[in-house]
Amino acid sequence: MNFSSRLLEQAVDEFGRLPGVGKKTALRLVLHLLKQSDGEVARFTGAINQLKEQIKYCKTCFNISDNQECEICASLKRDHQTICVVEDTRDVMAIENTNQYQGVYHVLGGLISPMDGVGPSDLKIEPLIERIKQFEVKEVILALSATMEGDTTIFYLYRKLKDFNIQISTIARGIAFGGELEYVDEITLGRSIATRVPYERNVG
Amino acid sequence: MNFSSRLLEQAVDEFGRLPGVGKKTALRLVLHLLKQSDGEVARFTGAINQLKEQIKYCKTCFNISDNQECEICASLKRDHQTICVVEDTRDVMAIENTNQYQGVYHVLGGLISPMDGVGPSDLKIEPLIERIKQFEVKEVILALSATMEGDTTIFYLYRKLKDFNIQISTIARGIAFGGELEYVDEITLGRSIATRVPYERNVG
Repeated sequence: MNFSSRLLEQAVDEFGRLPGVGKKTALRLVLHLLKQSDGEVARFTGAINQLKEQIKYCKTCFNISDNQECEICASLKRDHQTICVVEDTRDVMAIENTNQYQGVYHVLGGLISPMDGVGPSDLKIEPLIERIKQFEVKEVILALSATMEGDTTIFYLYRKLKDFNIQISTIARGIAFGGELEYVDEITLGRSIATRVPYERNVG
Repeated sequence: MNFSSRLLEQAVDEFGRLPGVGKKTALRLVLHLLKQSDGEVARFTGAINQLKEQIKYCKTCFNISDNQECEICASLKRDHQTICVVEDTRDVMAIENTNQYQGVYHVLGGLISPMDGVGPSDLKIEPLIERIKQFEVKEVILALSATMEGDTTIFYLYRKLKDFNIQISTIARGIAFGGELEYVDEITLGRSIATRVPYERNVG
């Protein structure tokens, strides 16, 4: 691209570093910001700076929080004996949106991925084990993505946790509700048949 | 969305205001920035703030520039008697990338759009007329989008400019090079046939 301004080029470069944002999108976003008032641009950059400077992570579950302990961990209404292990804060939000889960969480901060140089020590796995040792935990739900990295992390966690006297479960995998059979990929469909469940359990 | 942090929510709200960025994308971008180092985040917000504070517009053509006069207007190699009128700086970049144009530009800063409350006085139309009065201009090329707003602006500019002793042209419209006939929309195809040109002209 032929930029008429070095300042413009710098800002577009910075936006272009964001995941999924190409040069053309970056330019569109920067030109949009340029059209906004000084106050609006200051609010945009201020919100990011403030988040980066003041962000805290819950000391128990490592979810993003404004306080030392997140609202979920501080709540007396939640079941603190059930811990749902997730990759990041987005998964916490997704599960909270279902209104189906009353337990607490543990945010790993990633998945084991040798390709990306992420090993078990880069994740909050030790604090999870400490949590299980210190507090009375009945069940750990491994709610990780059905990807290679997710499966690797589940396998690693299972080996670490299997000697504790707790129930270890993973979330159910199969065809999505509302999904039409002919559009389901082969692996999911094959596994769905292999791991079929009695009708009574599925409607329950 | 159930945000675990007010700071996170604020930053996501700000990103979500950008055009084409939904809540989920905003969250993904903010979480990406959170994973970056303090220095990288400071460089991101700094580039935007610096652009907003220090940006200049060329006093002649109103293109974004680091100086009072942009490189194109300052260049002695360009044909200053031919002015290409465009909507914004992206169009200048697109035309410059073709390496087909040796004239100078005039950036309107938008298109006439009564629906969005943008009238002629909001655009750099008066300075264009001043430019034509003051300097020796032979041709004005109206290189605006083939949309309702573009056509309205072309019609307005044509009426304003037709009494000057200059050539007024618009960029050619028709099917794109490499475009297959069956996928061309009806209006473009119909107009392409109506405004057909002698073969000799098209290959020249």
